[in-house]
Amino acid sequence: MSRIYDRVALIGLGLIASSMGHAMRRHGLAGHVAGHAQSEATRQAALEIGFCQSVHATAADAVRDADLVVLAVPIGAMGAVAAAIAPHLKPGATVTDVGSVKQAVIEAVGPHVPGPVHFIPGHPMAGTEHSGPYAGFATLFDNRWTILTPPEDGDAAALGRLRSLWQAMGAKVAIMDAAHHDSVVAVVSHAPHLIAYTMVGVADHLAQVSNSEVIEFSAAGFRDFTRIAASDPTMWRDVFLTNKDAVLDILGRFHEELFVLQRAIRMGDGPALFDYFTRTRAIRRGIIEAGQDTAAADFGRAKPDPA
Amino acid sequence: MSRIYDRVALIGLGLIASSMGHAMRRHGLAGHVAGHAQSEATRQAALEIGFCQSVHATAADAVRDADLVVLAVPIGAMGAVAAAIAPHLKPGATVTDVGSVKQAVIEAVGPHVPGPVHFIPGHPMAGTEHSGPYAGFATLFDNRWTILTPPEDGDAAALGRLRSLWQAMGAKVAIMDAAHHDSVVAVVSHAPHLIAYTMVGVADHLAQVSNSEVIEFSAAGFRDFTRIAASDPTMWRDVFLTNKDAVLDILGRFHEELFVLQRAIRMGDGPALFDYFTRTRAIRRGIIEAGQDTAAADFGRAKPDPA
Repeated sequence: MSRIYDRVALIGLGLIASSMGHAMRRHGLAGHVAGHAQSEATRQAALEIGFCQSVHATAADAVRDADLVVLAVPIGAMGAVAAAIAPHLKPGATVTDVGSVKQAVIEAVGPHVPGPVHFIPGHPMAGTEHSGPYAGFATLFDNRWTILTPPEDGDAAALGRLRSLWQAMGAKVAIMDAAHHDSVVAVVSHAPHLIAYTMVGVADHLAQVSNSEVIEFSAAGFRDFTRIAASDPTMWRDVFLTNKDAVLDILGRFHEELFVLQRAIRMGDGPALFDYFTRTRAIRRGIIEAGQDTAAADFGRAKPDPA
Repeated sequence: MSRIYDRVALIGLGLIASSMGHAMRRHGLAGHVAGHAQSEATRQAALEIGFCQSVHATAADAVRDADLVVLAVPIGAMGAVAAAIAPHLKPGATVTDVGSVKQAVIEAVGPHVPGPVHFIPGHPMAGTEHSGPYAGFATLFDNRWTILTPPEDGDAAALGRLRSLWQAMGAKVAIMDAAHHDSVVAVVSHAPHLIAYTMVGVADHLAQVSNSEVIEFSAAGFRDFTRIAASDPTMWRDVFLTNKDAVLDILGRFHEELFVLQRAIRMGDGPALFDYFTRTRAIRRGIIEAGQDTAAADFGRAKPDPA
């Protein structure tokens, strides 16, 4: 594939930005990738790993002459970063972000973006439980969705170019209204994360079951919860604070639903439980058919060996 | 490794029994493996796949002359199976089971087991979201725990032999009181499964987010929930009905805990959320250090390729 932007600036050099750096380099999608992180150690790591060609002590320096600026900092830091870079943005440049909440980012960043600059919020729905510059890899976005939430009156050419970049990095791209995006991710990502955090927390302070037992015997479902609950605390704090309404709505529904199942257990209502569990199986089948996961048993942890 | 039992009978030929068959065959641990399943198709599959050397239309026929009988049927069916096989058990034989709840199995099976037969309940803490005779594989138990809950006055030699079998099939073996077992699994397995089922159910009947979107955009946490929620409905119905008290206790704690986090979100209490999420990370580290999971990102779904 060929170059899409001459100069890209990555602001924040964690899992997502480093993966973008690797993916752009793999396919030659950017002439130069400049990077900024607050920590000197992170900046040096980015250079040594090689997913940035230059690093800069300030975000303002990093964005100079950039055709594309990617804000990849926690959502709570987006507003301050936008204010810092605004005077240094090249006219005609595109600013995007990778935050998991879109309305809050638009409110925080939008007012700072100067007229001749295109602001196209984005959210790559990919990640792992690891964070930091060493966590990134070129294939993170392969076959995963990136959602873009451009303003209604936005520039079509700028949107087309950003969409091409994501596609060239391996992603499928969906265009969506920011409010709708925030509802969707509350269901498929934010609420499940909070629930996983909660279950791990419950296990943590159970007195009758010692912690070492929880850890030793975690092979079943709980292990998957701990993986989710190991994600970056700063990022998730900001997600919940900024997508508050949608998350609280889903949690309300979740409590109701759990109470119904809990009551079925208490009343010994086997048919109700069986029907419920049969229905959820169908959703899983849909996900495998949609190509969003593998049917390999246990995530391919154990390799079938019927010898 | 060498033969541990001359003749083993597997009653029920699903994921766990078929995996035991494969694992015993791999290491030559049983002279002959006899199998029984209610369905003729399942019995034929077991023969064709080759994890049983003979199959029998009744459980009574399958257990004749067996040195070890493994009850691998849903917990709700254990009592009836035990009653059916009781008159046909060989004196000195051992009966074990693989149910996820131990007190209920002891109550259902124990009274049927004749005096000269050893009853040693067991629970291999391993599985995948797949079920049936084609789901099994020889390495399912490798490095996973199997918990045995023998009676206090049980036969030490019989216990030692069963423990050797599990170890030879790759498992680590823990001996535990049945009541304590049921509390531990309520935390690490049963409650997390119910919660995953619930979250998938919530997503299923949300009107503002269409089902296809839930499926398309499931890459984040939700995908892991659907995997858990795809497990065998009959097995899980019986688990919740028979480990009722321990599960309801954990669910009560879970609601309280979730309400606390929910309140922190509503009040915008960032520090509380951050502290909570930092604490849960440590538990994840413990699980990786205990060898119960891999540190590979995203369960090794995506292969780091920092090229």
